[in-house]
Amino acid sequence: MIVRVALGERAYDVHIASGLLARAGEIVAPLTARKHIAVVTDSTVARLHLEPLRTALTAAGLTIAPIIVSPGEATKNWRTLETVVESLLGFGVERGDVVVALGGGVVGDLTGFAAAILRRGCKFVQIPTTLLAQVDSSVGGKTAINATAGKNLVGAFHQPAAVLIDPSLLDTLPPRELRAGYAEVVKTALLGDAAFFDWCDANVAALLGGDPAARTHAIATSVAAKAAIVAADERETGDTRALLNLGHTFGHALEAEAGFSDRLLHGEAVAIGCALAFAFSAERGLCPPADAARVADHLARAGLPNHPRGIATTAAPLMAHMLQDKKMRNGTLAFVLARGIGDAFIARDIPLGEVETFLDRTLAA
Amino acid sequence: MIVRVALGERAYDVHIASGLLARAGEIVAPLTARKHIAVVTDSTVARLHLEPLRTALTAAGLTIAPIIVSPGEATKNWRTLETVVESLLGFGVERGDVVVALGGGVVGDLTGFAAAILRRGCKFVQIPTTLLAQVDSSVGGKTAINATAGKNLVGAFHQPAAVLIDPSLLDTLPPRELRAGYAEVVKTALLGDAAFFDWCDANVAALLGGDPAARTHAIATSVAAKAAIVAADERETGDTRALLNLGHTFGHALEAEAGFSDRLLHGEAVAIGCALAFAFSAERGLCPPADAARVADHLARAGLPNHPRGIATTAAPLMAHMLQDKKMRNGTLAFVLARGIGDAFIARDIPLGEVETFLDRTLAA
Repeated sequence: MIVRVALGERAYDVHIASGLLARAGEIVAPLTARKHIAVVTDSTVARLHLEPLRTALTAAGLTIAPIIVSPGEATKNWRTLETVVESLLGFGVERGDVVVALGGGVVGDLTGFAAAILRRGCKFVQIPTTLLAQVDSSVGGKTAINATAGKNLVGAFHQPAAVLIDPSLLDTLPPRELRAGYAEVVKTALLGDAAFFDWCDANVAALLGGDPAARTHAIATSVAAKAAIVAADERETGDTRALLNLGHTFGHALEAEAGFSDRLLHGEAVAIGCALAFAFSAERGLCPPADAARVADHLARAGLPNHPRGIATTAAPLMAHMLQDKKMRNGTLAFVLARGIGDAFIARDIPLGEVETFLDRTLAA
Repeated sequence: MIVRVALGERAYDVHIASGLLARAGEIVAPLTARKHIAVVTDSTVARLHLEPLRTALTAAGLTIAPIIVSPGEATKNWRTLETVVESLLGFGVERGDVVVALGGGVVGDLTGFAAAILRRGCKFVQIPTTLLAQVDSSVGGKTAINATAGKNLVGAFHQPAAVLIDPSLLDTLPPRELRAGYAEVVKTALLGDAAFFDWCDANVAALLGGDPAARTHAIATSVAAKAAIVAADERETGDTRALLNLGHTFGHALEAEAGFSDRLLHGEAVAIGCALAFAFSAERGLCPPADAARVADHLARAGLPNHPRGIATTAAPLMAHMLQDKKMRNGTLAFVLARGIGDAFIARDIPLGEVETFLDRTLAA
């Protein structure tokens, strides 16, 4: 199936189908001026999916030049950005050429940002290979690297020319990464689609167990929701796109505290963040406590963490990270809270002291 | 006077007036959410203009945090970009804040690019202190650093929130830099305004000698011409904005061959490039030879170089640089040629071999 991201002259299609990688050439070839294509990937993904991609592109008359980076969040740094951009320039990439990002969120964010600044912008195609990238980071045009002061603080809005999602690539994904990506599916349901959360509640075992139909349904539903949000508020100038940050303000602080390491994957941080957002909403009387309990329970059933214990012992370091959040405006921070499952909203009037008290109490419990 | 750059939601004003620096606070204060403002400048400009700027901003209730880089083209590199961006983040700059670029084209290009990628885009104000920056690089939103493969190959289109041009700042500019900036004035006249070229021919001595009225007229005319071109073709997707590259394809190759050093300033390279573009146009029968001779003569009268001798001895290295031009498309390069003074056009069908022959013949003469 195809989900259209309706962004006028920057509109593009998200193609979703099992086995799609083998047909990548049909989609990529019409988009590129040059038949020799740079593919950025990481060494783990390269072992699994680079040769199948090469075969698929060769069938469409394309050849590839791989640029292979190290796997892991630490790759989203200045040095690797420089290396990738200089490699693409050395390779002769022009504005009308396509650069392919084959990998998870790290490869997609890094490659998209490199494409955004290469000759002031060239085309790129996302082929996400993790559930997290398939349901979230590959769609919407947010690209970035991390800075000393925080994650994703340096980047660009740069939409891909197309996104190719092949759910069968998830067969080789480690279970922990699959669960972490599933946290973004849950987030999408929690912020605006109670019926989809019910579906998740009924199908989580099938989805995580590898059922192809369940996976494709979860991905397509998540992508369609995100596409609608991005089309309404591409650059997050309104409140619409900010809803996608449900669980992310707490989550980013937790990731920063864990040093953006394997101690806590991004999706795991989002899972904890969603649980905290619902618990905080319930505590403030905004949301039924039963909904907060149901969220925490669902995350646990998915094998995801739902509590910040083990990452921080007090609120103070988390608050310090939040003050560096790139969504800070005029010294205040918008939180995504909820009136219930499927009904998130932006709260701008939350005193940071109350957040700190809540976190300290949660961590002491 | 004010020249409006009509770009819809990205529209902005270019303010031009002698003594304007002293009134900078009136223009900057309404644009920024935060009253404490980062100012990026270089050490040479800082000695001359930072305290007057500080005084002007203080009068409007603003305080400043200076970020001082080294002067010179070599500053447009990855390391300095990283340093500036990380400094701005450490300083706590948010999306609604203004970053001020106080300096020439190097500071403007670097700061604009830093602002473009900081939290995926924050506001910036250009206060150009060289003639080149006042008439050309501060207006239009092209921002960049240099790459190993060539100049300005890494960057973004990011429009400033305002441009403040104070021609009196040119009083402290070294004469060689003033002349180099004047090359962009001549370029603007040559590409589309024969009457303005006549004015330049009559007023070049007054302008370079420091006559305030002549300077303001030359700057305002150049900025108005550029603003109209940028409004018509912001991202150089059509042929309109590409006209601004008159003299730049040859010029960039010469700069690259000179190692982007003080051996050849950007404006000097553009002067030679304009002379070459007219000579090549005349040789191909496109343009009256008398016009080409008049261009070369005018540049010489302005104390500018009009011949590539001393930079290269054969065409080969210059051709190699041109093949890396970021405006290469599908392996071909568009040249800006002329039917006469004030009548430039884009030529896409020029065999590179003929360009090479022309350059070899010119260099041997």
